[in-house]
Amino acid sequence: MAVKDYIDTNDFTKEELLDMIELANSMKAMIKQGNRYPRLLENKTLGMIFQQVSTRTRISFETAMTDLGGHAQFYGPGTIQLGGHESIEDSARVMGTLCDILMARVDRHKDVAALAKYSPCPVINGMSEFNHPTQEMGDLLTMIENLPEGKKIEDCKLAFIGDATQVCASLMFIASKMGMDFVQFGPKGHQITDGGLQVDTDVDLLAIGLKNCETSGGTITISDDISCIEGADFIYTDVWYGLYDQEEEGASYMDVFYPKYQVTMDMMNYAGPNSKFMHCLPATRGEEVVDEVIDNPERSLCWEEADNRKHSIRAILAYLFLQQQAGKQVDEAAADAAQARMEAVLAKIG
Amino acid sequence: MAVKDYIDTNDFTKEELLDMIELANSMKAMIKQGNRYPRLLENKTLGMIFQQVSTRTRISFETAMTDLGGHAQFYGPGTIQLGGHESIEDSARVMGTLCDILMARVDRHKDVAALAKYSPCPVINGMSEFNHPTQEMGDLLTMIENLPEGKKIEDCKLAFIGDATQVCASLMFIASKMGMDFVQFGPKGHQITDGGLQVDTDVDLLAIGLKNCETSGGTITISDDISCIEGADFIYTDVWYGLYDQEEEGASYMDVFYPKYQVTMDMMNYAGPNSKFMHCLPATRGEEVVDEVIDNPERSLCWEEADNRKHSIRAILAYLFLQQQAGKQVDEAAADAAQARMEAVLAKIG
Amino acid sequence: MAVKDYIDTNDFTKEELLDMIELANSMKAMIKQGNRYPRLLENKTLGMIFQQVSTRTRISFETAMTDLGGHAQFYGPGTIQLGGHESIEDSARVMGTLCDILMARVDRHKDVAALAKYSPCPVINGMSEFNHPTQEMGDLLTMIENLPEGKKIEDCKLAFIGDATQVCASLMFIASKMGMDFVQFGPKGHQITDGGLQVDTDVDLLAIGLKNCETSGGTITISDDISCIEGADFIYTDVWYGLYDQEEEGASYMDVFYPKYQVTMDMMNYAGPNSKFMHCLPATRGEEVVDEVIDNPERSLCWEEADNRKHSIRAILAYLFLQQQAGKQVDEAAADAAQARMEAVLAKIG
Repeated sequence: MAVKDYIDTNDFTKEELLDMIELANSMKAMIKQGNRYPRLLENKTLGMIFQQVSTRTRISFETAMTDLGGHAQFYGPGTIQLGGHESIEDSARVMGTLCDILMARVDRHKDVAALAKYSPCPVINGMSEFNHPTQEMGDLLTMIENLPEGKKIEDCKLAFIGDATQVCASLMFIASKMGMDFVQFGPKGHQITDGGLQVDTDVDLLAIGLKNCETSGGTITISDDISCIEGADFIYTDVWYGLYDQEEEGASYMDVFYPKYQVTMDMMNYAGPNSKFMHCLPATRGEEVVDEVIDNPERSLCWEEADNRKHSIRAILAYLFLQQQAGKQVDEAAADAAQARMEAVLAKIG
Repeated sequence: MAVKDYIDTNDFTKEELLDMIELANSMKAMIKQGNRYPRLLENKTLGMIFQQVSTRTRISFETAMTDLGGHAQFYGPGTIQLGGHESIEDSARVMGTLCDILMARVDRHKDVAALAKYSPCPVINGMSEFNHPTQEMGDLLTMIENLPEGKKIEDCKLAFIGDATQVCASLMFIASKMGMDFVQFGPKGHQITDGGLQVDTDVDLLAIGLKNCETSGGTITISDDISCIEGADFIYTDVWYGLYDQEEEGASYMDVFYPKYQVTMDMMNYAGPNSKFMHCLPATRGEEVVDEVIDNPERSLCWEEADNRKHSIRAILAYLFLQQQAGKQVDEAAADAAQARMEAVLAKIG
Repeated sequence: MAVKDYIDTNDFTKEELLDMIELANSMKAMIKQGNRYPRLLENKTLGMIFQQVSTRTRISFETAMTDLGGHAQFYGPGTIQLGGHESIEDSARVMGTLCDILMARVDRHKDVAALAKYSPCPVINGMSEFNHPTQEMGDLLTMIENLPEGKKIEDCKLAFIGDATQVCASLMFIASKMGMDFVQFGPKGHQITDGGLQVDTDVDLLAIGLKNCETSGGTITISDDISCIEGADFIYTDVWYGLYDQEEEGASYMDVFYPKYQVTMDMMNYAGPNSKFMHCLPATRGEEVVDEVIDNPERSLCWEEADNRKHSIRAILAYLFLQQQAGKQVDEAAADAAQARMEAVLAKIG
C-alpha cells in the first residue's frame, strides 16, 4: 500500500524516491524551458505549519504549491498549537479535513508523526530535530543533476563535514538508501554515533543507515581523520551553531570545529580536483566555509541546491497528493445535479 | 434591499438563510462528488482581519476563497489596527476599496459593525464577543444534513449544555429563526439571561430570540434542570474556560460545571437514543465532553460540523459578493479600448 | 539597458514612468469597466518582505499580484532577516531565485538597494526612510486622472504641507521629473534641505530634484511662507508624527506644526478655489488635516489616491517582470519532452 505521508525517506523504496526525482526534474524542465506550469493541484490547499521561522523551506513550499495551481496557507510560529487544550489528534483531524495536504516544521519529530497519523490528508515533514527529508530530496536532485562524468549516483561518495545535525543524519539516510558511500568527517562528541541530535536516545541513527546499506550496497564511515573524505565527489557542510534549542556559545563551537572542519579550497582539493561543494544554507561565511569555496562557480553547487528545494518539494506535493487521489472516481451526474441546484440559488440572488 | 454584510443572522430572513444553506450544500456536493470547483469569485480578494488567533475559522475562510477561485489575505493579530491614529471609518473605507470582500474576527462587536458600516465592500463577522454567525451557518448545515428520520428542521430540538458563550447565544438566534425548540441547560449565573457574555449590557439576548420565535413558531427554554434536554435531537456543548478576555481559574469553572454539565453517554441517552452530539471545537476532552461521546461514530457530528465551517463559509462568501454585484453591467467596448491601450504599452517593453 | 529594479524613480526616464502610468490606467479601466483581469503574471510568485507593519502597501501589492493571476507571499516583520548570520547577498540570491519578483519595505534604504543588487529577479522598493516610489506612482496617476481643465501635468503645481518625510522627498522627485512646480511649505528644521530625513547625510535631496528640473523644466520651492502655495493645483500632506524610528512626543510636533501647517478649507481656498487635497494616509484627523477637507467630495482625492496604490503597483509589477522576460525564448520541444517524462511518472502513481 502506498505510503500516505512524507515523514521520513526511510519509509520509501529507492525506486519510489527516484520516481520523485524524475518528477522533480521533468517539471523543472517544463517550467524553465517552456514556461509551462503543471497545474496538477489546481484548487487545492496546502496548510503550512511552522513552529520555527524558515526562509528556504517556507518560500519553496509556497512557490511550489502556486506552480502546481494550488494555494498554500502560512501558519506562523505561535498561530497553530499542536497539543494543548486541544489534543494533537483532534487538530490533525480537523486541519486534515479542511486542507488537501499539510506540511509542518516542528520542534519535535513526534508532533509531525502524530499529525501524519491522525490527519486524513497527506502530511509532509518540513524538518524536525530528527531529520529534514525535503532537504534530502533537493540534495539528491542536485547530485543527480551534477554527476561526475561516467558515474552513476550509486558510484558516488558524499562527505559531510562537521556537526551531526539532522541534515547530516538525513544525508546519511538518503545516501545509504541510494547505495552511495557516505562519510561524516566530524569530531568525537559530534558524530552521528554520539547521539548529538536532540532525538529520543533510543533511536540508533547509524543502524538505520546500515540497514539501508544491506539492501543498497552503500557504505557509511564516521571519522575524525580527514583521510576519510579522500575521493569524495560531494563535500557538504552545515552551520556549526545549533539551529535547535539552546545554542552553544560562539566561542565553544569555534573551539571544537575551527580550523580543522572548515571547508577550504585545500580541503576541497584534498577530496579531489573536481569535488563539488554543497550546503543546505544559510551559511556563516568564514566559519564552516570560506568565500573562495562557496562563491566558486566551478565547484559550488549550493545556489542550484537552494533552487532545487522548490523543484523537489513541487514533486513531493504532486506525488503524495495524486497517489492519494488514485482510483477515486468522480460522479459527473451527481455533480451536474448539484450544479443545477447551485445555479438555482444564484439565479435568485443575481 | 439586500443586506450588504453578514454581521448577524438576525439581519436575514429565514428564506435567505436557507438559500445560503442550499448554496453551501450544492457547492459541497459539486466538489466532493465531481471535484468541480465553482470559481465564482475568480480574481477576487478577501481580506481577513484576525484580532485573535484562530484555526478553524481562518483555514475555512482561506480554503473557501481558494475553492471559489479567489485569494484570501491574512492579517494576523497586531497587523491591522482598527481605531488608533487612523479612525476605523478611514481604515474601513480604504480596505473596503482595495479588497473585494472583508472578514474580521474581533475583540469587540462594535468594531466589526463599524467596519461593515464604512466599508464599500461586504464584511463578514468571523466571531465577536456577541455572536459567531458563520459557526451558526455551519451548524445549521450540519443539522439539516443529519435530520432525524421524518423530521424537518422546524420539528427539531437543539439543547446547548453549559456556559452562555457567544456560540450558545448564536445557536439560540439561528434555532429561533428556523422555528426550532432551543434549550440552554446551564447553571444560574451562566445562563443567557444572566448577561454572561461580555457584551454591552443593554443588549437583551433573549428578547432577540423570542422575537424570532414570534415569526417562526420556535421556542426557547433556559434551565438548570436536566429534564429540559429530554427529546433533544442535537446536544451541543462548548469549552468551559472563556476564550474571551480574562479566563477564570481552572478550578473555578470545574466547580461550576462539573460533573453536572459534562456531556456523557448517559446524558446523550437521556436526551434520546438517537440524539446527535455537536461541538464547535476545540474540545477539552474530559471536561465538557468525554471521549466516548466525541469519538462515537454513530452519535458525534462534530467532525462533519468542523468540515461544514468551510462549506458554509464558501456559500456566505459567494452569496454576499454576487448579491452586491447583481445588476452591475460590464462595458465591453470600454474594456476593449482599455485593453488595446495596455497592449500598446506592453509592445513597447516586450 | 532596461532598469531591472524599481528602487528609485530617479533611475527611470519620464517616458518610462509615463508608460507605467498608461499601463496602470488602462489595466484599471479593463478591470473596473469590463471585470477583465490582465493575468500577465499567471503562475508567478511575488515575495513581500515587510520589516515594518503596513496596511495600504501590503494589501495593494497582494491584491495587485492576484489581479495579475500570480501569488504574493507575505513575510512579516521578524520573519526574514536581511543581514545577520546569513549575508544579505546570500539571502537575495536565494530569495531572488525561488521567487519571480520581490518587494521590500525596509528600515534602511541600503538594505533594499543591496537586495536589488544581488537578487537575480526584479526588486521593488515598498518604502524606505529615503523614499516611497510606489506611492509616487499612485500619486502621479491620481493627479493625471484629475488634471485641472485644460492643463497638462507639466503645467501643474503641487504643494506639500508639513514635515520633510520620505513621502515629501518622493513627491519632489516625481514632480521634478515630470516638470511640475513643486513646493514644500514647512517650518525650518523640517525642510527638505535640513536633512530632516533619517538618510545618510551625504545625500543631497534637493540636488536630485534640481537635476531633474534641468531636464524637465520643473521648479522647486521650499519655504515657511504660505504665499508659496498660491496657485497650487494639488495640496498634499502627511502625518506629523514620525512613522520611522523614535517618534517625537506628541506635544513637540504639535508645537512645531500647529496651527500654521494644518490643512483647512481656508488653506485650500488660499491655494485656489479648485485646489485638490491629497494624503498618503493614514491621516490623523484634527492634526495635519481637518474633517471638512478630507471628507470634502469635491476637493479631496485621497480615497481615490488610496485605491490608486493598487492600480499603480499592478502596473509596476507587470512592467518590471515583463521587461525582464523580454526576449526570453521558450523551447517547446524540450518542454514537450519534459512533459512526457512527467506523465510517465504520473502514470506509475495514478
